[in-house]
Amino acid sequence: MLFLKKFEEKTIGTEHIFKGKVISLQVDEVVLPNGNHSKREIVKHPGAVAIIPITDHGTMILVEQYRKALERSIIEIPAGKLEQGEKPEMTALRELEEETGLGCKELTHITSFSTSPGFADEIIHIYSATGLYKIEESAPADDDEFVEMIDISVEEAEEMMADGRIYDAKTAFAVLWMKQYLKK
Amino acid sequence: MLFLKKFEEKTIGTEHIFKGKVISLQVDEVVLPNGNHSKREIVKHPGAVAIIPITDHGTMILVEQYRKALERSIIEIPAGKLEQGEKPEMTALRELEEETGLGCKELTHITSFSTSPGFADEIIHIYSATGLYKIEESAPADDDEFVEMIDISVEEAEEMMADGRIYDAKTAFAVLWMKQYLKK
Repeated sequence: MLFLKKFEEKTIGTEHIFKGKVISLQVDEVVLPNGNHSKREIVKHPGAVAIIPITDHGTMILVEQYRKALERSIIEIPAGKLEQGEKPEMTALRELEEETGLGCKELTHITSFSTSPGFADEIIHIYSATGLYKIEESAPADDDEFVEMIDISVEEAEEMMADGRIYDAKTAFAVLWMKQYLKK
Repeated sequence: MLFLKKFEEKTIGTEHIFKGKVISLQVDEVVLPNGNHSKREIVKHPGAVAIIPITDHGTMILVEQYRKALERSIIEIPAGKLEQGEKPEMTALRELEEETGLGCKELTHITSFSTSPGFADEIIHIYSATGLYKIEESAPADDDEFVEMIDISVEEAEEMMADGRIYDAKTAFAVLWMKQYLKK
């Protein structure tokens, strides 16, 4: 991983505003490259994983979930937050099981990226999951989480992107990635 | 746009925690589909645009920018926040000019999506820009914004994704989208 440092902003103070269940918020005072001072509002997040579950016949498993921040439900690849000390691969297997009742024979890291670099430190790790199989007594989802699973082709997923049922960055990435994957 | 409502969570209270320059933070108390109560931490953001500037010879214009939330700089497609009352197309043209000094003859909406639906309402509108030309006396960037422009092929962009210089969701989407665009 290449960490670039151009135009670095040095922190000269941090005000802690909020610490919640999922995120915390701080405001950093920084020195800019030209010597001026500015403030940066920063959301701290534990990081997340998302999984592209690919069936043996080349379809994708997605989940419908209500997203309070958007005041609507959207159709997404399965995903979830990293628990303290948990390796991303373990989170991926856990979330896949909780949200879809599925296990996988192969889990492959595709890429990792920041979701909102302008205001949040959240990094999401994206995996593909193949060799899917049903887990008979699968772990339940979190008690405040309600999801419904669907099995669709990449063409159906593209339609869902066009009409807004798919409406988030990781799933938009996953649909384009899946199109390329199926061409190989 | 199809707004799905499955598993809707009704708000029964909102606590306003913070109102900043860029984001604000609130905690909503909600009633879940099973009747239980829960809290949702929600970051409010004005929304953003990002532009994939495509040169006449099929390369992409990207910008390097320090991202305090990540404590490093990354290489991204040009992007910026919506100003109050500004149409996304206007934001796209303004940000393209401010960050690259370029105008474009054609601006085309590709898609829009939520960056972090688990905790933020930010929507980003993605455009392609073609017919690029240099604006002689271009508008300057914001006074706390420092960016450097680069012109690269999609293969170079894929290398940058692999080594982590490209490291954000909208640009990862843009690289895959650009690969498909060049094949047409």
